[in-house]
Parts: sequence; structure tokens; C-alpha cells
Amino acid sequence: MSVAKAPLRRAEVIAVGSELLGSTRIDTNSLFLAERLAALGIELRSKTVVGDSRREVADHLRRALERVDLVILTGGLGPTDDDVTRDALADVVDRPLIEYPDIVERLVQRFARRGLKMPEVNRRQALVIEGGIVLDNPNGTAPGQMVEVGDRMIVLLPGPPREMKPMMEALVSGALAARVGAERLFRATLFTVGRGESHVEELAQPIYSQWLTRAEPIETTILAAPGQIELHLVMRSANETQARATLVDARDELVAALGPGVFSIDGRSMEEIVGQLLADRHLTISAAESCTGGLLMSRLTDVPGSSAYVAGGVVCYSNQLKTDLAGVPEELIAAHGAVSEPVAFALAEGVRARTGSSISVGITGIAGPTGGTPEKPVGTVAIAVASQTAPTRVSTLWLYGNRGQVKFQAAQMGLDMVRRLLLGV
Amino acid sequence: MSVAKAPLRRAEVIAVGSELLGSTRIDTNSLFLAERLAALGIELRSKTVVGDSRREVADHLRRALERVDLVILTGGLGPTDDDVTRDALADVVDRPLIEYPDIVERLVQRFARRGLKMPEVNRRQALVIEGGIVLDNPNGTAPGQMVEVGDRMIVLLPGPPREMKPMMEALVSGALAARVGAERLFRATLFTVGRGESHVEELAQPIYSQWLTRAEPIETTILAAPGQIELHLVMRSANETQARATLVDARDELVAALGPGVFSIDGRSMEEIVGQLLADRHLTISAAESCTGGLLMSRLTDVPGSSAYVAGGVVCYSNQLKTDLAGVPEELIAAHGAVSEPVAFALAEGVRARTGSSISVGITGIAGPTGGTPEKPVGTVAIAVASQTAPTRVSTLWLYGNRGQVKFQAAQMGLDMVRRLLLGV
Repeated sequence: MSVAKAPLRRAEVIAVGSELLGSTRIDTNSLFLAERLAALGIELRSKTVVGDSRREVADHLRRALERVDLVILTGGLGPTDDDVTRDALADVVDRPLIEYPDIVERLVQRFARRGLKMPEVNRRQALVIEGGIVLDNPNGTAPGQMVEVGDRMIVLLPGPPREMKPMMEALVSGALAARVGAERLFRATLFTVGRGESHVEELAQPIYSQWLTRAEPIETTILAAPGQIELHLVMRSANETQARATLVDARDELVAALGPGVFSIDGRSMEEIVGQLLADRHLTISAAESCTGGLLMSRLTDVPGSSAYVAGGVVCYSNQLKTDLAGVPEELIAAHGAVSEPVAFALAEGVRARTGSSISVGITGIAGPTGGTPEKPVGTVAIAVASQTAPTRVSTLWLYGNRGQVKFQAAQMGLDMVRRLLLGV
Repeated sequence: MSVAKAPLRRAEVIAVGSELLGSTRIDTNSLFLAERLAALGIELRSKTVVGDSRREVADHLRRALERVDLVILTGGLGPTDDDVTRDALADVVDRPLIEYPDIVERLVQRFARRGLKMPEVNRRQALVIEGGIVLDNPNGTAPGQMVEVGDRMIVLLPGPPREMKPMMEALVSGALAARVGAERLFRATLFTVGRGESHVEELAQPIYSQWLTRAEPIETTILAAPGQIELHLVMRSANETQARATLVDARDELVAALGPGVFSIDGRSMEEIVGQLLADRHLTISAAESCTGGLLMSRLTDVPGSSAYVAGGVVCYSNQLKTDLAGVPEELIAAHGAVSEPVAFALAEGVRARTGSSISVGITGIAGPTGGTPEKPVGTVAIAVASQTAPTRVSTLWLYGNRGQVKFQAAQMGLDMVRRLLLGV
């Protein structure tokens, strides 16, 4: 058993779950797995979604093992009858499942901590393939497992992302890292706002196209995500220091070409970037939101530690509450309409006065699908940013998309106006 | 050739394209295909993404044909070297590709209309499998194709959704409709809150397990989604009226067993259900949110038409703003702590008084990851619901998960308390 095993190079991912085969749900775990595998230099060759059928999961696993040396299955590790992944694995590797008493004990205790008795069905989650290694799950009841069959490796991970991700991270730095070669994939990203995909492409393409002919080429992907355009740079190398330096230079070249619309060069979201700027300056923020309905504040408070700089604010959907909660004069609304720059201005100023925050945002707009007029179509949004130290900035946007997209983009642009005001750009 | 072929019952979808194997892009064509197939009574059994490798596409196609009778491939029909789907098909069915002069002619004209000469590489798009049927593509250069191999059918569709969808629609009302039986799939769903997956399973399993042995069995899937447990019922039948009635009876049996925790029996979200209850009663709602940071109000305003019943509210992250914006007495916070039932109570009462809404929610809690204490660990959330007509209800929850999950569940339970109060359950 001391013979070194061949390095893992090619992987397939199999997501198990009938609910992922309908018209509404999608497997997103594989995006995370693709990224983590790439970091190890392991190529993801295909990914499959299969329903909760023991026979079909077994067949897909068997075929995958004929093509690649690493197969990761996610999902189907729950306690119910339709959680079939463990049994399918046993069928394929032709080994028994063994109940581990210490896993049963941990499950019993996990339920007991919430004052509950472990349902008998959960005992199934303590079954581990003979010769397998148990992967601890601090965030749920289903442990993962890993088993080597000759040079090939099979990994079973739970379906819920918050259980799957930490388990995969532990594997990436542990058992998987021990089984890969010298080359790794390295990445850099940058996120922009305020320009469409084709305009970003026009500025970026002359630069990144030159990187493809290098000895160690950089591949660039442009991706339109909600409220932002992302550029992803990837290169393969055995020399980490050199690869990282090359990617930083490349990224900086794009940043210079794209200007202040670049808001993140490390994968952080707009709310994280704005939060950091506020925290660094010991400032607080508030908002008076109409069409975004609280989304801007909710996004700011998604960031751990945001209680240090988020004061709070008001949601004023009705005109009456724009006056009562944010002090917008009724005459202003009557004169300009609720969706107007003067009202956005008054919302920002009013909420700042009432909360005593250092900076504030006012947003008013038409999220749709109804409520638009020829002059102010659906997607019209007025945003103002007020602060203690700088003149209030106001702008009007015409956003595309459905109700959710208009809300998200309006919140995104409001946060971006805060970012630009704080940076003076 | 006049012998009728067996009806198509089971399908797999294979999306071809290396770009779909990275960490950013996702295949969404399969959602549309799943929906269209289900409408025909064809079950989607699995879906796969595979890169632009002729050998691997061929292998996946070959395996799929061993499992199901219909395989739909999307993508890889472009003019370049890495468009390999046609060649893979030829390898699998062992028939030649034949250049169709009329397709070449159409391509030449398509380019000519834009004043362009057809690049020679595009000639590849005129290659059709021997015995295949050409599927017209009004929105692009790549025609689709369809070929029958015995009782099985293989369909090649282009990758871009605007080219793929009309082609699939034409198939659904044409060639595919001619190959399906009288049976269709029918579905029912119900969503619950307030119980974990295993407990829902314990109550539901004795009921749904009996449906599996019927002449027309109902298959039930239990799914843990954020803030709710979902039950999905599916049955196959040739008699629509009878099937729908059977599913309604089955669903009602589960509703009776699961009790008032069932909040949706038609796929609508909690915010849609609560919105409808408010709209039906001509009531308005407000909220004073601390740990949820505006998420409850943002979710309510995700629903089109919500301006009819959402008044607005306040986000009061700091203790000062709980007092200033929602009128919570400072002494109350000092005596009980910001996360306490008395403060939740005062938040709900205070925001209702200030907004004049019919009903209101107060939420205060510890979203984490820091801020927990032994008595009030991360995930502790106090929620109150006040109204004009009923006594104020307050409860304390201990929620699991990361910051985003605690926020979502807290908003979900807040909305559920509104639902229960309005329904008197």
C-alpha cells in the first residue's frame, strides 16, 4: 500500500436530486466545485444531474469512473428513502455499507442539543462504505465520505451548499492536494459597473487578446452578472509566484483601461467594498428606499460586521411615508412626482438628518411591471447620495429588466454612488 | 416503415460546450427543455454538460442511448473546429454526414443579406446525418437535426436560447408530439414552514408511501429549500381530469397531516401568499427590522402590485435608531437587551403607530457570525406581529445557518407569523 498513486487529473461531478431535473431548480454546487478543482489543476470534464434513482445514479457513476479518475457526487445523503447516493456507491464499488456507532452518537447529540429525539430514519446517515473515510460535517447531519478504488477516487458530499463547501475546502487542502501534480490554475477577477457587456468587451478585447499568444497564455472570460460585468482571467502554471505576478500586471492593465467603473479586484461584492470603505473611514450609513423596498440596506447588512457602520433607515413605499418617515415635503412630491431627482435628494437629506448617519442614500423609482408612463417608463430610478462633507449627488437611471432586476440594479447603482463619493471619483 | 414506433417516455439532455464547465456559466437551456418535455409526458431522467471533445460527447451520447429513448443535445453546432456535436453523432450512429446544397445556399444568402461572403468554415453547418431530418433555424446559421435509430430518437439543437427555443417548440407540436403516448405527467406541490425535513418526512411518509402501490402511483419528493420544506407530487396518467382530482385529494391528505405549517399549495412563495392575504382584506403592512436589515420588506416588495399593501417601515440596526425611528423606550432595551421579546413587541407596536398600517412586524436578533452569548447564541431572533384587531403575538426562535440564512429564515418566520395571524391559526 506504500506505492504512490497516479495524480488525479480529470474529474466529473454528479449532482443527485430529482428536484434538479425540473424547470425551476439548477445545480450551482458544480460552479464552486469547478473553481476549487481548477485551483488544484484538476480538469472538470463533465457534470451531470441525475434523479433520486439508485440504479441510475449507479450507472452514471460507473460510466464516469470509466472516463476520469475523480468523481464527486453531491446530494442524496439525507435521511429519507429517496436519498440513494450511499447505496448507489455500494453497488458500484461492490462493498458493504457499515453503520458507524460514533456517527450515530453524534447525530443523537445533534438532535438532543435542540431538545429533540433523533428520528430513526437518520440512522441511515451513519452508513459508510467499507474502506471509506468519513468527512466531518459541522453544518449538518449528513457526513461526507471518500473512497479510493485503485488509482481512482470517489467523493460523496452533501447537497446543501453550506454543508458541501466547507467539506470540499477541507478536501482541497487535504486529501485532494496530496493527489495532484505540480501545475495549478491561477485566477484574477475584476468587476465593473456602469458599462454594458459589449462596451466592456470593446475596451478589454484589444488588451486580453494579446495574452493568448504568450508561452503561458492567460484566458479571459467576460461575464454579464446581475448589476455588474465581470472579467475572469485564468492561467496554468507550475510557478505560483510568477503566475500571480503576471496576473496582477494583466489585471492592472485592464483596470487602467476600464477606469473607475472597476469596483472590485478580489471577488468581493459591491456591499463588501462599500462596507470596507465606510469601516476604514469610521463612517455610518443610512438609506431611505422606495422602489428598492429595503434591498439596499438588506445587502449592506448581509456583510458580517456591518453593524459597525449600518445605522438603519426607512422604507417608504407610500408617498405619505416619504413625508412622515423621511421628511420629504408634500409640495415637492406634488410638484415633481414621487420619482424625481428632487424627491431622491430630499429622501437622502431627510434620512440623514433623522438617523444622524455620516452618509445616506435616497432611492425612488418605478420597478414595474406596471406604473410606467411615457415620460417615466418602468425602470426609471432617481438616486441621491448625501454626506456630511461633500455636496449631495443625484442622478437618474433608466434600467432594463424585470421587477427583481430593476430593484437589484437600483441598489447596486446606489451603492456605487456611495463608493464613488467616498473615493472622490 | 409503416410500423408504429414505441412512444418516447424517457429523455436525457446533453449540453455541449467547454464554457459551461467553468465556475461562472451555467446551462439554463435544460430548464426550458425539462418544462417542454414534461408537458409531453416525457420524463427528463438526467442532464449532462460536456466539453467540446468529440470523443467525450460521443461517449456520453452512447451511454444515454443505453438508458433512455430520447436524447437532446444542445450546442456545438457552430462553424468552428471546436463544434463537435455533428461528428460525435456520426461516430455513435455510424452513419456519414452529408453536405446539403440547399443549406449551403441558405447560409450563403444569409451572409449576403448582410453584405458578407460566407466564410468557408460555415460549410460545416450544412452537414446532416444520413437519414436525418433538418430543423430550420430562422434565428441563426446552425440548423438543427433529428434522427431516429430504431425506436430511439436523437435531436441536435443549437446552444443560443433564442435559436434553440423556437426549434424545440416546433418539435414539441410536431415530430415529438407524434411520438408520445396519451400519458402526461401531472404535478402538485406544497410548501411548509416551522418543521425540519426529518419531521415532515415522519408525518408524510406513512401517507405517501401508500400511493406508490396504486395502479397509477404518485411519486413524492421532499426537498429542503431555504426557509421551507417542499413536497412535490408527480403522477403519470392519460386522464387529465382524473389525475388532477387524484392529486388534489392526495395533496389535501398531506395538508391535513402537516397542519397549518403548510403555507402554499400552488408553488407561490411566502411573500406572494402573505401579499394576497393582505390584498384580499384591504390591509396594509409595515415592519421595523433590526437583524433582517430590510430583507422582510424587500421580499414583500418583490411581488408585483405590492405597493397596494406595503406601507413601508424602518430598519433600525443601532439601538439609538430603535428608539428614534420606532419609539422603543431606551429603558426597555437596557432592561431586556436589544434582542428580546419586549423589544420585538415595542418595534412592532412602534412602527405600526408611526406608519398607520393595519399590521406590522418587529424583528430583532443576532445574525452572526459574532455577537452571540451563551444565553443568546447566534441565530436567536425575537419576532412580534401587531395588528389593529388581534392581540400582538411574540415568539423567539433559534435559527441555524450562516448570516444570510439566519436573515432569510427570520424574514420567512416573520412573514409566516403574519400569515397565521391573518388566518387565525
